[in-house]
Amino acid sequence: MDILRDNERLDDLQIKGYQIIQDPKRFCFGMDAVLLSDFVCAKGNYKNEQVQGTPEEERDPGNLQKVQRILDLGTGTGIIPILLAAKTSVPEIRGLEIQEASVDMAVRSVQYNHLEDRIQIIQGDIKEAAEIYSAASFDVITSNPPYMIDSHGLKNPYEPKNIARHEILCTLEDVVKAAAYLVRPGGSFCLIHKPFRLVEIMQVLTAYKLEPKRMRLVHPYVDKEPNMVMIEAVRGGRPRITVERPLIIYREQGVYTEDVRRIYE
Amino acid sequence: MDILRDNERLDDLQIKGYQIIQDPKRFCFGMDAVLLSDFVCAKGNYKNEQVQGTPEEERDPGNLQKVQRILDLGTGTGIIPILLAAKTSVPEIRGLEIQEASVDMAVRSVQYNHLEDRIQIIQGDIKEAAEIYSAASFDVITSNPPYMIDSHGLKNPYEPKNIARHEILCTLEDVVKAAAYLVRPGGSFCLIHKPFRLVEIMQVLTAYKLEPKRMRLVHPYVDKEPNMVMIEAVRGGRPRITVERPLIIYREQGVYTEDVRRIYE
Repeated sequence: MDILRDNERLDDLQIKGYQIIQDPKRFCFGMDAVLLSDFVCAKGNYKNEQVQGTPEEERDPGNLQKVQRILDLGTGTGIIPILLAAKTSVPEIRGLEIQEASVDMAVRSVQYNHLEDRIQIIQGDIKEAAEIYSAASFDVITSNPPYMIDSHGLKNPYEPKNIARHEILCTLEDVVKAAAYLVRPGGSFCLIHKPFRLVEIMQVLTAYKLEPKRMRLVHPYVDKEPNMVMIEAVRGGRPRITVERPLIIYREQGVYTEDVRRIYE
Repeated sequence: MDILRDNERLDDLQIKGYQIIQDPKRFCFGMDAVLLSDFVCAKGNYKNEQVQGTPEEERDPGNLQKVQRILDLGTGTGIIPILLAAKTSVPEIRGLEIQEASVDMAVRSVQYNHLEDRIQIIQGDIKEAAEIYSAASFDVITSNPPYMIDSHGLKNPYEPKNIARHEILCTLEDVVKAAAYLVRPGGSFCLIHKPFRLVEIMQVLTAYKLEPKRMRLVHPYVDKEPNMVMIEAVRGGRPRITVERPLIIYREQGVYTEDVRRIYE
């Protein structure tokens, strides 16, 4: 198939027949992207409160039905935009990615799935996002950023996988700063990250006036520490967070819980 | 029995034969005090890291074996000091409580259990704790503070139950400020609170240089939102938190999980 280049493969996303082009030698999406897409779709699942200084008509609609524009920061091969296109009817989904080869794959995946009218992928640096998109121009922003703080011990920090996993080209603060600038008042920023950085994540979000309103921890098993945390922060929101029930991945070894099966359906 | 006054009763704590005097018309301890006592005993259950600026000999011993002095802020009828006396061999356990009638019951409970050589209860205001105890004089500080932010809608805010539940005589910041002043560098502050205030709790702790190092959410059932959160913060600790496996209370209606049965044993 001429849509694929060397080493690339086409993976079936098991939703609406959509496929994604990936290169196993670079970086393949993980469960985190799938879980975040699901978490975003449940946005506004906290008690419906007035958001400070937000006019009635701009208040969070409580789900994605009224959402016009979503941006995914550091979109990689475009997995989150494509999953959101499958799960919602949001008309304008944008993705920003710094690595040229990933952008190239993402653009071809969008074409392959005939989603060009809804999804646009742009190559660019999160640190320069303010020059690429207009201020307050998105209803929702998502990100599955690099989790690891530094590049200690990495032989080649600029290897594609390392750029996706370590804070080599952008830090947590770079991502939050861009999100805070690009999301409208009352709009929300959803991210997935590692629980060991929870305190820092909350500090950075609130420093940029993104108030954490909803959080869900992801545990591999019910009796294990969480290995991921998902947070929805609202620009200008009032300080009150809903911690949701835990998301447990496996009921027993190799057997997904009902929650996860529902997400993958 | 002449140790009891009007309305008071003696409740068996089911540990080492210890009893506690309570007045159901005032405020009786709840599961939160029991869970916090257990959480404190597991202190240091995070990866053993160097605490910034702390000499080797002052580093957190990782459990309560080497702990000399514990203080419970807002101790009520002394439930946490008595449980800690039962569960540990810590020689000096102190409790500070503002309500005279609670202090009176706590003192009598300490006497009844013959714990006068280990537990001392003092009547006083958390906001004046710095005048009561010396700076950095405790290894561990605990608190089960009032959870509710204000006294809106309360007929009589100064009723004993309301003082214990609402921030009428002290705020979260008052408690954290006192703890930060009284705990030694490398020592820890353990509190239990409501998850909806999680962001604020982390902000206030870090503002007072108490770094959250360990957190455990308490869920009534595995598929329900948490209704309590326990946090251990270390004075001068490095920013990295361990979120522990969830503590689930009921396996099914009326049936405690193994975890809770172990705590109550």
